[in-house]
Amino acid sequence: MEAQIVPNFLQKRAFLTPDRPALSFLGKTYTFTEVYERAYTIAGQLQAAGCVRGQFAGVLLRNHEDTVFILLALQLLDVKAVILNNRLTAEELIWQMNDSKSAFFLTENTFNEVTQKVVNSLGGISAIYKEDLFRRDPDGPSVVDEISLDEVCTVMYTSGTTGNPKGVLQTYGNHWWSAVGSALNLGLNENDSWLCAVPIFHISGYSILMRSIIYGMKMVLFEFFHEEKAIEAISIEKVTIMSVVSTMLTRIADELKDEKLPVNFRCMLLGGGPAAKSLLEDCREKGIPVYQTYGMTETSSQIVTLAPEYSLSKLGSAGKPLFPSQLKVAVPNGKHADPGEAGEIFVKGPNVTKGYLNRKEETAEKLKGGWLSTGDIGYVDKEGFLYVLDRRSDLIISGGENIYPAEVEGALVSHSQISDAGVIGMKDDVWGEVPVAFIAGDENLDEKEVMKYCSEKLAKYKVPKKLIIINEIPRNASKKILRRKLRELLEESGN
Amino acid sequence: MEAQIVPNFLQKRAFLTPDRPALSFLGKTYTFTEVYERAYTIAGQLQAAGCVRGQFAGVLLRNHEDTVFILLALQLLDVKAVILNNRLTAEELIWQMNDSKSAFFLTENTFNEVTQKVVNSLGGISAIYKEDLFRRDPDGPSVVDEISLDEVCTVMYTSGTTGNPKGVLQTYGNHWWSAVGSALNLGLNENDSWLCAVPIFHISGYSILMRSIIYGMKMVLFEFFHEEKAIEAISIEKVTIMSVVSTMLTRIADELKDEKLPVNFRCMLLGGGPAAKSLLEDCREKGIPVYQTYGMTETSSQIVTLAPEYSLSKLGSAGKPLFPSQLKVAVPNGKHADPGEAGEIFVKGPNVTKGYLNRKEETAEKLKGGWLSTGDIGYVDKEGFLYVLDRRSDLIISGGENIYPAEVEGALVSHSQISDAGVIGMKDDVWGEVPVAFIAGDENLDEKEVMKYCSEKLAKYKVPKKLIIINEIPRNASKKILRRKLRELLEESGN
Repeated sequence: MEAQIVPNFLQKRAFLTPDRPALSFLGKTYTFTEVYERAYTIAGQLQAAGCVRGQFAGVLLRNHEDTVFILLALQLLDVKAVILNNRLTAEELIWQMNDSKSAFFLTENTFNEVTQKVVNSLGGISAIYKEDLFRRDPDGPSVVDEISLDEVCTVMYTSGTTGNPKGVLQTYGNHWWSAVGSALNLGLNENDSWLCAVPIFHISGYSILMRSIIYGMKMVLFEFFHEEKAIEAISIEKVTIMSVVSTMLTRIADELKDEKLPVNFRCMLLGGGPAAKSLLEDCREKGIPVYQTYGMTETSSQIVTLAPEYSLSKLGSAGKPLFPSQLKVAVPNGKHADPGEAGEIFVKGPNVTKGYLNRKEETAEKLKGGWLSTGDIGYVDKEGFLYVLDRRSDLIISGGENIYPAEVEGALVSHSQISDAGVIGMKDDVWGEVPVAFIAGDENLDEKEVMKYCSEKLAKYKVPKKLIIINEIPRNASKKILRRKLRELLEESGN
Repeated sequence: MEAQIVPNFLQKRAFLTPDRPALSFLGKTYTFTEVYERAYTIAGQLQAAGCVRGQFAGVLLRNHEDTVFILLALQLLDVKAVILNNRLTAEELIWQMNDSKSAFFLTENTFNEVTQKVVNSLGGISAIYKEDLFRRDPDGPSVVDEISLDEVCTVMYTSGTTGNPKGVLQTYGNHWWSAVGSALNLGLNENDSWLCAVPIFHISGYSILMRSIIYGMKMVLFEFFHEEKAIEAISIEKVTIMSVVSTMLTRIADELKDEKLPVNFRCMLLGGGPAAKSLLEDCREKGIPVYQTYGMTETSSQIVTLAPEYSLSKLGSAGKPLFPSQLKVAVPNGKHADPGEAGEIFVKGPNVTKGYLNRKEETAEKLKGGWLSTGDIGYVDKEGFLYVLDRRSDLIISGGENIYPAEVEGALVSHSQISDAGVIGMKDDVWGEVPVAFIAGDENLDEKEVMKYCSEKLAKYKVPKKLIIINEIPRNASKKILRRKLRELLEESGN
């Protein structure tokens, strides 16, 4: 069969409900017509700058109204956005730009320093600063009126056990089905408004943008999360839904004290790893309607979410797979786990990625018969509710950001004086977890110098908060790091 | 690309929200678990009776809870339901059974008389009466856990200009996208409930059943439409949405007098042909929230619907194409019509049929590049709102049923004494329109005998309400009936 063809999302939305509010940023509100017109002009400017359909484009931009307009302009032209984490180092950016074969680097003056390094390293690829772009005379852009749901829309990088980040392909269909699956679970009211205080370069933020266009719903965009401002916006902007990770929710709950959120607020969507039961109970007492959810870059956000009627009775569960999606838990012999039995979580559905950019082998390894092996551990109870026990056994989640130990280890062992390294997470009151590195190597290893070296190689949140020098990294027969042993060592050291 | 795979709709819904009300019929309410369990048992009984995946099955059943269970049982097994209009004559049923190569005929005792005729005519195909089926020992049914959206789910027959009814293929995807497109327009509330007082053998009724499953929403099912009972159900069953055609809406509006519908009622979805402006204005005065809509069997119900915010300012318009769909109006030279200019309506989208059962040629003729030529006439205004002027120039819509003149003409000329016939619609206060036949033939033509002959050949609503004998049916050079001339003759005759 042919892939499904649908109208260009933004163009269609602006046609259907031109006067509805679409985007609110720093107190200014834009209708869908206004958003479309800004995106259309920018599409013309991008085209004048040489962007053409089908290209991949690195995008390094902060949460800002301009970023929304630019990301939508890329959709109008069907240029695929390789959306780059704002915290990456020049070295990490260069790696992702090279790996994605991106044709240009779209950024803003704030990132000038890192951009210069990227451009110097990438021969022939020029940076386009939005400040310059917006001064250009726009072409009449070749807007893509129809799009196949099978076309790639965005690419976001995640790391795996091998250490090298891989570009997750997210099609228009992935985003579409994700939005629809969420609406079938949470409902869809004419007065809905979704607060985006998470990074738009993450799928958690970008998926809110897509829902705004597909639903015809106002997105309230924040530059950064701030608990007081979030509570204020919920009242003033009549926000009904908000996406949070545990650290954000804790700060909101603490800030609220004995106050209540307004009744129009109907859903606090909590993602980014398992949440502490104490936090969930605190929210229950304060009447915050928390919906736990489980998802990842590969599923274009949520794939399992707790339905409204179970938010209290199944506290701690991530819920059931959304209508179009499926879930299974498998034990090591490949069989389905029994209810209550822990195993690896597999997911399937039209919001699941079709694979990794330019990586056939890794794609085939992770995706078998449509089933994505998440590497995460969990179980389902007798009624089919998922409880996530651990995001990928070695994954460290720090303030909602994923940190892949293998990537940090790779950076460490590239240091001339380090022969081996093992990284694990350590509990942290503010961030949930922070990375800790065990290193082995030269006797005269200089901790400070290693830290500085890491800061050049790795985004700040990935830099180990603690270095522990040991003689040898414990490994098993097949040379896999024994992280359990490292955790014991950490406990012995008093952490 | 592969067609999209999704979980079995009913199975998934019963898993997600087992305890929500799913179906209400004659005062009894079933949860999704209960509906699933009934359907599961019946699937086992159908399997015991020899039904297997992929077969086509004629289904002649009235609006009833059992019909819901049976239609869903067929989905569990992926047996394709050829859903038969309850009013068809034995001859019409036999034609559709033969044309669809249906493997069995699923019906109920009420239809015993017509069923006997069908079975006698169709060698080797047995009738399965639900009353017998329900007494069978069920097998453990082979429930289809996953379904491709490209698979045929249902077939419904419509006639064309050639006179022979054609089976419209409706895939699981067509139904899915129709439900999703509607939800993106009308919204989706946890407490929604949809009143189905239209035939479930029409797409207008069947699509409510599909929405019930996909949304997790209660369907209130009526055996027949009754204005008083509808108003009562809206209050007692807390109905929020109802599908109607003009004649139903007129009777509700008249019955209401100065009363108001309860505030929880949010949408009166009005389909089945253009509505009189006077009716729409009457409803506006009475505060009935009418949403005009345009759709057909080939689009699995609505494809163009007026959005909430325009229900008053664009009175008389059918609205804009739903999010996943597209619309164009073409003038005879094939060009796009200008705003305000009338032409033929073409539609495209994932809810549009992939064609007619076993009819490659007709499919290729009606569907070009994904665009379905509807034969209907309309225009779009400057803002893109559709105004339907006429359903297919020759189509007669009587109480929500489509009557295709060519089909009635075919029945007439099969009479040995009739040499030619032409059928048009005549305005009628109760039904909107009724068919009138002009016939030419033998001098000693007996009107009564012709009427009796028609009653055997045609469903009652298709039988001409008036016969007018003329010497010659006016035709143009290419032998097409000049219906305009017939209309003049009708006016001259004082109608």
